[in-house]
Amino acid sequence: MKINVPLVRRMLTGFIRNEVQKTGHERVVVGLSGGIDSSLSTYLAAEALGPEQVLSLIMPYRTSSPQSLDDAGKVVSALGIRSRIVDITPMIDSYFATFPEADPVRRGNKMARERMTILYDFSMAEKALVLGTSNKTELLLGYGTLHGDMASAINPLGDLYKTQVRQLAEAMGIPEPILRKPPSADLWQGQSDEGELGFTYEEVDRLLYYMVDRRYNEEQLQDLGFEAGFIARVTKRIQGSQYKRRLPVIAKISNRTIDRDFRYARDWGR
Amino acid sequence: MKINVPLVRRMLTGFIRNEVQKTGHERVVVGLSGGIDSSLSTYLAAEALGPEQVLSLIMPYRTSSPQSLDDAGKVVSALGIRSRIVDITPMIDSYFATFPEADPVRRGNKMARERMTILYDFSMAEKALVLGTSNKTELLLGYGTLHGDMASAINPLGDLYKTQVRQLAEAMGIPEPILRKPPSADLWQGQSDEGELGFTYEEVDRLLYYMVDRRYNEEQLQDLGFEAGFIARVTKRIQGSQYKRRLPVIAKISNRTIDRDFRYARDWGR
Repeated sequence: MKINVPLVRRMLTGFIRNEVQKTGHERVVVGLSGGIDSSLSTYLAAEALGPEQVLSLIMPYRTSSPQSLDDAGKVVSALGIRSRIVDITPMIDSYFATFPEADPVRRGNKMARERMTILYDFSMAEKALVLGTSNKTELLLGYGTLHGDMASAINPLGDLYKTQVRQLAEAMGIPEPILRKPPSADLWQGQSDEGELGFTYEEVDRLLYYMVDRRYNEEQLQDLGFEAGFIARVTKRIQGSQYKRRLPVIAKISNRTIDRDFRYARDWGR
Repeated sequence: MKINVPLVRRMLTGFIRNEVQKTGHERVVVGLSGGIDSSLSTYLAAEALGPEQVLSLIMPYRTSSPQSLDDAGKVVSALGIRSRIVDITPMIDSYFATFPEADPVRRGNKMARERMTILYDFSMAEKALVLGTSNKTELLLGYGTLHGDMASAINPLGDLYKTQVRQLAEAMGIPEPILRKPPSADLWQGQSDEGELGFTYEEVDRLLYYMVDRRYNEEQLQDLGFEAGFIARVTKRIQGSQYKRRLPVIAKISNRTIDRDFRYARDWGR
């Protein structure tokens, strides 16, 4: 689980530079929450492209913690990147005025998707690629919103577990308060990822590493000391969220169906 | 290009039934614009699942044509499905109040994505799958909004060209005014797909069929009578929109990267 920090840093900045340039772009736009993941993506992009080519959007809702806004501001000033604050409260509140019974999960998903629509709107207005901020732990557990925070053009963090994100973030000099605070989707006061998930990132990353990267089976995992119930719970989360990691299923009628027989790389023809 | 209508009808209703049931669902939710594609998806779903298992959302903006609302209403009453009207004007207008300079393309994309957020919100509230309405012509030309109308869980139309959609829609008894009207995204008065694209669906479907399904090369296409300029324009559209038909690119760091080495079917584990 220990990464070679200088090597990964070079690989990820190279990835961003290459993907942006080969699609004929110069810039990225990134949603900056003030958390460690979006801060790390932003740091990597600023190093890869230069700070003037990074536009960060800070998109608070009225219940967002002032600390988040403050932390996002620290990243902006440390890097000297462009930033813009877009308050999502009017759009969210005008929707839920019609559906006051909606629970916090529906509200959180709507907010994540509203932020996506704004990132993509700026992406078009600024001819910039949307930079992803989802890490491998979140993606595997399905702990994110489909067509919301999981949506992007290119994602430098999608193959790094949360604990690996921390190693790289620390090395890149991300401000201490961002490194130290408990990860949270910041939908209500006191919310924390680990509280919601019911396990710590340290625990689950270790399990995911052996399950996914090392392909250990149930017995081997138990031999390592993982409890059967924990293994079952995580397996269920991974399989149950597989639909979030796939494109829509198209009914096959012809002999060349999109995403089945008709499949090309994203940068086909470049 | 002629389809075996009774066979395709059976395949597509079977597809919907199978995909809905195997993921543990009973219902679908579909965005009904009053156009031929969303009408056909809705007809197929009502036949596959029974009308009581289909919830249609009609989501007009203040500039939407009253005719569209009227046509959507015809589908609802012909099928006896559930429906709900959600006006997207408040959310859209509160966003563009901050960005009054936005052009019609940005506005149209924001509307398409707002509708997606509402469909997915209802999908969660109603435990229903989001039913897709994009046809093969639109998908290949990239004539749709990523994370907007292109987003769905299952798409019965994605392997049917527009002219094939017409054949099936006619056979299923979709109301005449819907079959007859010129296809349009209905963003402004007088807008039409064919006007924007610069060619007719008849022309481009024939070209796409030979290019994609039959894998004809440039020379063979020209022998069929297609002009070099038309072939080039369509090729550019297909390649330039490939990013809309792919998931985000994840920087590869580990030996098992999501969507690269870690790939399972959408219904993995069911």
